[in-house]
Amino acid sequence: VSGRLLVIGGDAAGMSAAAEARRADPAREIVVLERGDLVSYASCGIPYLLAGEVADEGDLVHYDPAYFRERRGIDVRTGAEAVAIDPESRRVELAGGGSVAYGALVVATGARPTPPPVPGVGLPGVVMLRDLPSARAVEGALPGARRAVIVGAGPIGVEMAEALLARGLSVLLAEAEDAVLPTVHRDVCGRVVAAMASAGVDVRPGAAVEAIAPGDDGGARLRVRIDGRDEPADLVVLGTGVAPNAEIAAGAGCALGPGGAVRVDRRGRTDVEGIWAAGDCATAHHRVLGRDVWIPLATTANAQGRAAGRDAAGRPARFPGTLGSWVSRFRDVEVGSTGVDEEEAATAGFRPRAIVREGRDRSAYMPGAREVSVRLVWDDAGGRLLGAAMSGDGAVGTRLHTLSVAISAGMTVADLAGCDLGYAPPVTPLRDPVQLAAAAAAGVGR
Amino acid sequence: VSGRLLVIGGDAAGMSAAAEARRADPAREIVVLERGDLVSYASCGIPYLLAGEVADEGDLVHYDPAYFRERRGIDVRTGAEAVAIDPESRRVELAGGGSVAYGALVVATGARPTPPPVPGVGLPGVVMLRDLPSARAVEGALPGARRAVIVGAGPIGVEMAEALLARGLSVLLAEAEDAVLPTVHRDVCGRVVAAMASAGVDVRPGAAVEAIAPGDDGGARLRVRIDGRDEPADLVVLGTGVAPNAEIAAGAGCALGPGGAVRVDRRGRTDVEGIWAAGDCATAHHRVLGRDVWIPLATTANAQGRAAGRDAAGRPARFPGTLGSWVSRFRDVEVGSTGVDEEEAATAGFRPRAIVREGRDRSAYMPGAREVSVRLVWDDAGGRLLGAAMSGDGAVGTRLHTLSVAISAGMTVADLAGCDLGYAPPVTPLRDPVQLAAAAAAGVGR
Repeated sequence: VSGRLLVIGGDAAGMSAAAEARRADPAREIVVLERGDLVSYASCGIPYLLAGEVADEGDLVHYDPAYFRERRGIDVRTGAEAVAIDPESRRVELAGGGSVAYGALVVATGARPTPPPVPGVGLPGVVMLRDLPSARAVEGALPGARRAVIVGAGPIGVEMAEALLARGLSVLLAEAEDAVLPTVHRDVCGRVVAAMASAGVDVRPGAAVEAIAPGDDGGARLRVRIDGRDEPADLVVLGTGVAPNAEIAAGAGCALGPGGAVRVDRRGRTDVEGIWAAGDCATAHHRVLGRDVWIPLATTANAQGRAAGRDAAGRPARFPGTLGSWVSRFRDVEVGSTGVDEEEAATAGFRPRAIVREGRDRSAYMPGAREVSVRLVWDDAGGRLLGAAMSGDGAVGTRLHTLSVAISAGMTVADLAGCDLGYAPPVTPLRDPVQLAAAAAAGVGR
Repeated sequence: VSGRLLVIGGDAAGMSAAAEARRADPAREIVVLERGDLVSYASCGIPYLLAGEVADEGDLVHYDPAYFRERRGIDVRTGAEAVAIDPESRRVELAGGGSVAYGALVVATGARPTPPPVPGVGLPGVVMLRDLPSARAVEGALPGARRAVIVGAGPIGVEMAEALLARGLSVLLAEAEDAVLPTVHRDVCGRVVAAMASAGVDVRPGAAVEAIAPGDDGGARLRVRIDGRDEPADLVVLGTGVAPNAEIAAGAGCALGPGGAVRVDRRGRTDVEGIWAAGDCATAHHRVLGRDVWIPLATTANAQGRAAGRDAAGRPARFPGTLGSWVSRFRDVEVGSTGVDEEEAATAGFRPRAIVREGRDRSAYMPGAREVSVRLVWDDAGGRLLGAAMSGDGAVGTRLHTLSVAISAGMTVADLAGCDLGYAPPVTPLRDPVQLAAAAAAGVGR
């Protein structure tokens, strides 16, 4: 492989690819095309910016384009929108004319929010949250706003509920499915729902949002029709999911896979010679399911970007696979999951079983001991751990790391129950909730 | 195996053995001999009891003897001290006369603190901390006390320093070795030493305690001679290590192993037919070293007790092995380790390498982000993770769980670097410090 290494997209996957390509090949010409103004910023931090916990949007920017140009020798071109790829001549066409040649191309075009299919999603005060410009739109709608409707109770909806409460708004959270955080089993999500309800969020699972319309004169700016009834809102935040920006790669002949994302192999290669893809626009190998999935996550984008950048730079690389691990938080209650639930496990030929256990995050007699719920999914044939979900106001995020590692290692629930985990009364109990759940699953040490 | 299942010792290993034997065999007669008044209490909670964080010593008692008798059908006999075992007649002799017959015997006699070899360790106001009676002795010395000397800077010494500061004493912490928490590498321990120093603890590594003597009239109750100079103290706490209570098993012909502890196999069997041993009095299989070690820890005692109790009750059992995982805390700074250090690794034939990395416990831009230090030890031949140590005021204890699981699974540092760990800015960063250290060790994604 030789010639310019070109990256389309300067977010998590794209900049990881560029940075890793530079490590792999100090001499290679590396160019990044970014249609916006910013590269390498933490979009997952936006709810905390809007909440006021993060003081300035500049805090979310890891590195600016000048850093990459001057310190890493990566030619970052902002305001440069790629509109087409010609894989024969190995050129990328730019909006407004002109083109850039490449020897190797990494497509890291990300994903875009998808609005719900209802009228009014384009009205002023309705924001699809995704990036810093959309965060600015929320900020712009806040002065004088008293009531917000959030559509979609995924992690972004839950985190935005916290943020908007912190800004003094009352919040209605509407979710079409009959659950908050629908990807997490309700055994575990109850703690999040309870925390939101007690914080005053009007949580409405199974709520059909039918239309958004301008408000009445003198009242709220907008009306949101939910289950046939108008709800006033000064701000509507849409967090109803995302779709992969796969069009430009598809136009070059790259095959698509699950979710309509660009199909890539473990090295990040698309079906078209000389074109790699990574991040939210691409599929990813799933460690447990053993097949490609599309689960857009910053962590996966980062890891895929590194693999694709390295491989495109001519060094061997292999994306180890995703478990779809994620964590979120509502105030003190952390929640997250890793691996698969029973339904997914069954589709992959496993015979899934599941268990939920409650435990304390430290010795029960210590002041401040808090409860966590652990749900484990394992294969009845052999006991292999397949998935886990947790919630609680203890250290849930880092305990999920433990479960992610156990799943990645192919451990059985008995293996996990038998691990030697440290213990200190104010930190972690004699038998950690993760281990108690694993022991219960293994039928040992109940 | 049939006949009465007898357990000597009602602490972590003994009560775990009895409870697990009951699960394994609902009909078996099970008797526990405990020389003290209490069984099943959390001795690791004693520093927090003395600090005033735990209100009452009853809070540390998980279950009382009546619970075991009435609810679990386990005949717990307190005040019953075993003094000898006759393996031929299968009888245990009691102090004060009488004996108890057994079909299967589990020796769980624990360990005892070892005083430093200096004059004066028996003086009033000098306490070897181990159990609730010794905690009462500390409590009894507190009224009017202004200055404490703690001898031994292991976890008990560090935790007692915090407790005695909380009770208003000034504290001098003397350690014979040239380090605080000598089992943890100084790269990682610096945070603990700094936290203790800034809290006002007079930390003295490399300090030789030469004698303890009564104090001068009108001054402190005691004088502690350290490096040739007298230090006044109203209370001296000795935390200079423990020795296994192996005598009774040795007297029955059981072979001893490392540390003078009773040698047991993975099922908990000693060399004498019909006698099992578990906990602080026994050796334990080490997962990484692949040989027996003696590392007394409550977690190991608990797990070994379950295995021995089950095996003695006639059901197959196997202790999975120890990693010597432990956690401690000084105020907000958690510290701990799992697996082996370079020196131990080298003795086992590995070619150890080590690395230290600092990282944030959550996204650096989040308020409250705190630093943690991660030290990894791995085998240069193949990259297998062998050990880890951490410290910091983030969630260290649960992150060590992740490392313990990775070591137990035989993961390489590259495997760990490639795991899919969840991410949420206020909870755990895009790349966890554990993963950053693993990636640095693997030479990927630096």
